[in-house]
This record gives sequence, C-alpha cells and structure tokens, in this order.
Amino acid sequence: MKKLLAEFFGTFWLVFGGCGSALFAAGIPDLGIGFAGVALAFGLTVLTMAYAVGHISGGHFNPAVSFGLWAGGRFATKDLAPYIISQVVGGLTAAGALYYIASGREGFAIDPTSAGAFAANGYAELSPEGYSMAAAFVTELLLTMFFLLIILGATDKFANSGFAGIAIGLGLTLIHLISIPITNTSVNPARSTSQALFAGGDYIPQLWLFWTAPIIGAIIAGFIYKNLLQKKEA
Amino acid sequence: MKKLLAEFFGTFWLVFGGCGSALFAAGIPDLGIGFAGVALAFGLTVLTMAYAVGHISGGHFNPAVSFGLWAGGRFATKDLAPYIISQVVGGLTAAGALYYIASGREGFAIDPTSAGAFAANGYAELSPEGYSMAAAFVTELLLTMFFLLIILGATDKFANSGFAGIAIGLGLTLIHLISIPITNTSVNPARSTSQALFAGGDYIPQLWLFWTAPIIGAIIAGFIYKNLLQKKEA
Amino acid sequence: MKKLLAEFFGTFWLVFGGCGSALFAAGIPDLGIGFAGVALAFGLTVLTMAYAVGHISGGHFNPAVSFGLWAGGRFATKDLAPYIISQVVGGLTAAGALYYIASGREGFAIDPTSAGAFAANGYAELSPEGYSMAAAFVTELLLTMFFLLIILGATDKFANSGFAGIAIGLGLTLIHLISIPITNTSVNPARSTSQALFAGGDYIPQLWLFWTAPIIGAIIAGFIYKNLLQKKEA
Amino acid sequence: MKKLLAEFFGTFWLVFGGCGSALFAAGIPDLGIGFAGVALAFGLTVLTMAYAVGHISGGHFNPAVSFGLWAGGRFATKDLAPYIISQVVGGLTAAGALYYIASGREGFAIDPTSAGAFAANGYAELSPEGYSMAAAFVTELLLTMFFLLIILGATDKFANSGFAGIAIGLGLTLIHLISIPITNTSVNPARSTSQALFAGGDYIPQLWLFWTAPIIGAIIAGFIYKNLLQKKEA
Repeated sequence: MKKLLAEFFGTFWLVFGGCGSALFAAGIPDLGIGFAGVALAFGLTVLTMAYAVGHISGGHFNPAVSFGLWAGGRFATKDLAPYIISQVVGGLTAAGALYYIASGREGFAIDPTSAGAFAANGYAELSPEGYSMAAAFVTELLLTMFFLLIILGATDKFANSGFAGIAIGLGLTLIHLISIPITNTSVNPARSTSQALFAGGDYIPQLWLFWTAPIIGAIIAGFIYKNLLQKKEA
Repeated sequence: MKKLLAEFFGTFWLVFGGCGSALFAAGIPDLGIGFAGVALAFGLTVLTMAYAVGHISGGHFNPAVSFGLWAGGRFATKDLAPYIISQVVGGLTAAGALYYIASGREGFAIDPTSAGAFAANGYAELSPEGYSMAAAFVTELLLTMFFLLIILGATDKFANSGFAGIAIGLGLTLIHLISIPITNTSVNPARSTSQALFAGGDYIPQLWLFWTAPIIGAIIAGFIYKNLLQKKEA
Repeated sequence: MKKLLAEFFGTFWLVFGGCGSALFAAGIPDLGIGFAGVALAFGLTVLTMAYAVGHISGGHFNPAVSFGLWAGGRFATKDLAPYIISQVVGGLTAAGALYYIASGREGFAIDPTSAGAFAANGYAELSPEGYSMAAAFVTELLLTMFFLLIILGATDKFANSGFAGIAIGLGLTLIHLISIPITNTSVNPARSTSQALFAGGDYIPQLWLFWTAPIIGAIIAGFIYKNLLQKKEA
Repeated sequence: MKKLLAEFFGTFWLVFGGCGSALFAAGIPDLGIGFAGVALAFGLTVLTMAYAVGHISGGHFNPAVSFGLWAGGRFATKDLAPYIISQVVGGLTAAGALYYIASGREGFAIDPTSAGAFAANGYAELSPEGYSMAAAFVTELLLTMFFLLIILGATDKFANSGFAGIAIGLGLTLIHLISIPITNTSVNPARSTSQALFAGGDYIPQLWLFWTAPIIGAIIAGFIYKNLLQKKEA
C-alpha cells in the first residue's frame, strides 16, 4: 500500500507540476517560462520525487516506465496493474486540482480544437507545430525507448546509482526540450490520459497513440538493455 | 546559537537572492531572466545554503518547513519559536538590504497597488495574473505540502540523503515555475512577511494567507509522510 | 560488442537530442527554447548517457573524446577505430531519424546556403553570426581542449568520480552557451558529420575543420593533463 | 607548480566561458541566451573546473576566494601571492583569446563609454542598469561574502563535501542571476581586471571597487564562518 500511495503522489506531482507550469506560466508575454521552463518543470517533478519516494516504490510515476522495467526483468508481472491504476488515478486527481485552480482566473476556458489545450498531447491538427501522426508515433516511441535505457542503465548495479534520480529527471527535461513542438510531449500514458479527459474533443480519440507508442518503446528498451547491454553477473 | 545564526543567514540568502533576482533582473527587456530565472534563483538559494549550513541547523530557512518537520516527528517543539524568529529576522534584514540597493537606481519606487510590488506575494487584485483567493490558497497549500513531502522523503534514513540539497533546492525551483503567476509564489511565511512590510498597502492584510496556507500544507505533509509513507524501522 | 553498442546508442542520443532540440524547438516564436535550451539539451544527452552506459563503454560518444583519452593514456590504441566507427554510425542513424520526423511537417526543407541548416556546423558564410574560419578553428580547438581537461580531471582517481557525469554533461552545455553563434558548436566530429551529410552544399567541404580542430585540441589536453597536471601515484 | 597551473587553467576557463558567453551569445535577437544563460555559463565554469582540478589546487580561480579561505584558516599566507598571480594571468590570457575570436567577426568594436563593454564590470554610468557606486559596493561585498559562506560551509569536514562543486558553481550562477544588471557581476577581481584592461576608458579607474568590495566581503565571511558558525572538532 505504501508503494501504491507513493506512485499516486509521484504521478500527481508529475502532472500537477509539469502540466501546471505549462498551463499557468508558459505563455505569459515577456516573463513567461516558455517550452524550456516547462521542460525543466517536468524533469524536476521526477527528480524530486525520485529522491523523495524512490526508496519506497522505485519511483515509476508512468505506466510506460513500469512496462519497461518489467520487460527488463526488474519489475514483477503481478505489480503492473496496481501500479498503473495508482498512476492514472494520481494523474487524474492532479488534473482536477489544476482545473480548479485554473478556473480561479476570469476568462478561463478550454478550446478542444486548438493544439495544447489544457496541456494535452496531440498529433496532426492537434500537434503544437503540425507534425503528422507518423512523426508523432516515431518520436514518442524513440523518446520513451531512450528514457527507459537511461532508467535501466542508471539504476544498474554496476552504475553509480545514487545519481539515477538526477539522470532520469533531467532526461525527462531533455525529452521535453526536443519534443514539445511535436506532440506536446507525452512518453507517459497516465499524463496524457489525465489531460485528454479534461481537454475533450479529438484529444480522446487520439489517446491510443500516447498509450501504444510509449509502451512499445519502453518494452523495446527493456529487451535491448537486458539482452544486449547489461553486463553479466560475476 | 550556531543553529539560529545559520537559519538567519540561510533565510537572508533566500530572500536576498530569490526576491533580489526578481527585483533587479526579471523584467529587463530582451535580456532579463524572466520567471524561469527567478525560479532558478529561489531554488539555488536553498540548494547552496543546504550544503553550506545544512549540517549546522538542518537548513529550514522557512517557518512552514519547521512546522512540517515538527509534524513529521523530526523537529523538537521547543525549537519551533526560536527557529521561526531567526527566519523572520533574517528575511526582514535581507529585505532592508534589497531596499537599500534598489534605492541606488534613479526612479526607484514601490507601487503598493500593483501585483508583485517589491516581489511581494498576493492574491486576487494583487495576484500577478489575477487568480482568486481560493485558487491562491489551494495552490500555496498543495505546493507547500509537496515541498515537505520532498524534504521528508529526501532526508529519510532510507533515502540517499547526500542528494537531499539538490532535490529540495530544485523542488523550490519547480514550485516557482508553476506558481509565480498565481501568487508570486510564497510557500514561505518569512519570505512573504519580509516583502509585504516593504510593499505596504493591501499586501499586509493579505499576509494571513501566506502564513496559514503554507503551514497547513506542511503539517498535512508531515502527517502523511509519518503515518502513511514512512518505512518502519527494522 | 556491448561497448560498441553503448557508443552507438550514446552518440545516437547526443545527435538526436542535441540537434533535434535545435531543429524542432529552438526558433519557435515566443515559446521556443533558444540557444540556451539547445545548450542544455546537448549537455543532458551526455549527462544522461554517462550515467546510463558510462559503466559499459566509458561514455565517449565523440571521436575527439576517444582521441583525447588515448593521448592521456586512458584508452587503448586498438580501440580507437571501432569506437569512432560506432560513433559515426550512431550519429548518422540519428540524423536519419531526425530527417524522417522533420519531414512529417508540411513545408520542411533544408537550405544548404543558410547558416545552421539541419543543425550543421559551419564557419565564415555558414557561421550563424558570421565568424571567420580562423576564429572558428581557435574556438573549436580551445573548447575541445577544455572539454577534455574536464573529462580527464573529473574521472581522475583522485577526483570524486561519481560526479563526473554531471561535470562533463554540464561542461558540454557550457561549451554550447559560448559558441553556438560562432560555429553552431561541434567539438564532436561525429555530430558534425551526421548533420553535414544531410545539409549538403558547402557544409561538406567545411567538415575538415570539425574533425581537425576538435581532435588537435583533445590531443593537446591529453598531453597537458598527463604530463603537467596529473598527480603521481603514491 | 601543478597547483598554479590548475589555477591558471581554471581562471582562464572562468573568464573564457563566462565572459565569452556574454560577448558572443547573450544579446542575439530572439535566440540569445540573455542574462540567465550568462549566469548559467559562469556557474558552470566553476562547477566543471571544481570537479576537474579541485583535487589539485583546491579550485579557487578567484583572488577573493583565496583571501576568504585564508581568513577562514584554510589557506596558507605564503600561497596567497602565487595563487593570485596565476589567477590574474589566467584571466588575462583568456581575455586575449576572447579578443582574438571576437575580432574574427566583421564590425567588432569596443565602446568604452557603454555599460558592459567587453563584458567588463562597472558602476554608476557603467552599471548596466544605472546603479550607484554605493549600491554596487554593497552588492559586490554581500554577494562575495555569501559566496564564501557557501564555499566554507560546503567544504567543511562535517558537510557532504562531494557536492561542494555543485553548490559552489550553482552559487555563482545564483549570484549572476541577481546582480548582472547592477555591476555586470564581478565577485572576482581577476575576472574584472582581465576585462577592464581590454575595455579601457573609465573601466580602469573603476577597477578599485572590484578588488576591494569582493575581498572585504570574503574576509568578513572567513571571520564569520570560522568564529561563529563552524562546529568545534570533537
């Protein structure tokens, strides 16, 4: 139970902090934090929670991460479903809190036909800069695959694993620096689901991509790391 | 006494560096550091002082942090009042130094009816982007609650606690990336008090929120961490 | 083989993440990440892969780094060629992936006569801000020399080497903060080659500088560190 | 001799990287790194060299740091002069390299009557935002004092000293986030001297402030840390 609560709080923080910085602070004229500030915020949600509750739950906060660690032989099959449910519930709760706060400003409204509505992920006409479905799929798959290579490598017993929280958190920052203009950056089905349900419109039929591409990428990384990169035990 | 002096210097630095970057460097056209730079500055005040004097006083620099650690069973009741007094005095001294330096530029003036005057915190008509009192309260409470979860978790004996200064400092950066537009970001009653006394006007009657919301959030976090997340001793 | 695969993935990530952030996210009006965001992205590719696969291959991801470590007595002559081939192939594969994704947006085109085309490196008329060939050569040589001094020093047995990934990765960020306007920053022949082949035009005859200047700088650093700075064994 | 060479290279890198990022990359329209990027660059020069050569020379790179460590009882009187000479020579050599590279762009010129010429420090009419001499003096003194408190505290035997390079480097970033608009930020007489000699004009008669204020601040910090904060040996 402590593990599931840690995943709940961690994923809440990821969505509240990452999507919250995008909603509240990204686009303010002159002073706003821009895509780089949002990228930093997403990464710091994971960096902070990795050090705060990583010793409790392992610090996944993301169904794709759970799948990737499972494929890499580091996470038990029976724990997959409870972890993923905690993550999705945590993300949705955070999206509700964001909605409440955003509503506290006059003129707040969500336009489900514009890209990046309520910080949701999208492709084609809902891609921030108009990237195709195929480009979005490849981007999400590749970025999640490398995210899992970073996670599997940095937490390897042969690595200096105290630094894993820094490498993984700032890895998520890097991923956002590359891909916010393409899909608004998911690599995390719980994050995508939480925002799509509030954004509505075409965001909901587009959700399939933000579950399949990250999870496929994560499973490929688990396979590659376990079979091709990992050093054998002595 | 060493502890109280460390808290004095740490809170001085938090207010001088965080609020100072906002006052002097945020809004300069083209080259200014913007909200993201101010967020980084606040976080780095805590990161630097955590490594510098954390081994002396524990590195609170914030009455809400002291209350949260107390609620989490990590800080003695008898130390609460002296720590908080040192923090408030440190913050006020820093605000005086900022006032002196700011006055060294022609045309310096404080307008107590505009949002963000002298880097003070506010809500409703004094919120940088016009967020309501309720939105401000929820934001400050939630952010301080997560700030304390990060602190309590990252300094847990089961965590890799050498990294706590990084996680906590950059956690404060993250908090500012989210919420400068909402309340100008407090999560710290000493920081709010120091600026409100110089900003004057309606900032002073609004101070109650920046004491109650952070401290309530911190105490909730202390309760959650101690009772629901913390691993039992072996 | 594990080592060469690690170098392949690491260099893929360096080019995909660093050049990708430049291509997709740097120049978007108002919200774009700018040169500072690209600088952070390049550095984080190395920081993340250093912790992920540094324990497998040493984490070079750059022919100049391999040459510099060889000159410093830390890398075997027989490993130079296979490492460099893996790096160049990894970079080229990443450039292909970037080309595929970039093509997924309407209106994508590469203009080989404009500076920074497809994130390629250049000097004189292909320098982002019009710096001469001599200025570009000195800049690339000096920056690679200091990059290797950082690498050799931070991984020295007398240094606190767990932090090397942070120092080296953020060192690459620093190098980009200085020199994107001069050469679009190489310090890495594999990165330059990967982009020049896609950019075409005069970028290809300019490639010589981005092999010679970084490698000469790296070899000088190896010589200086080994003979003038390194402490003798006890 | 290894120590003096390490100080030479470290101070070269501080001036080349910090001032270089300001000269080449700060003010480019739309894409430039701004004051925040320059702040990051200065901090990363110290972070990288602290891990690279800190184990050789202690990593001062700054006459005020040497004086502060001396006042704090951590540095021998006889080493002061050679360290400071190495630092000043390293800074001047870097300024020469910057001049050579900057000259490789058409239209390069230095205007000694405008603030921030060749990244030099100044006050009053040479302060970037027009701050008075008194404000500049207090700012430089206070910031150097806190810089030394960070250095003395983070390298204390009771602190987790592996992290000192991060705390000190990012502390210098923080200092720049606050004070570039006031004095263009010195806290380092070697850095100021190196730029003033190339900027010329009134920058040279203003150099006195950038030697006295940082050194006085550093010595105060040494006294405070040693006598009021430092824990006694067991």
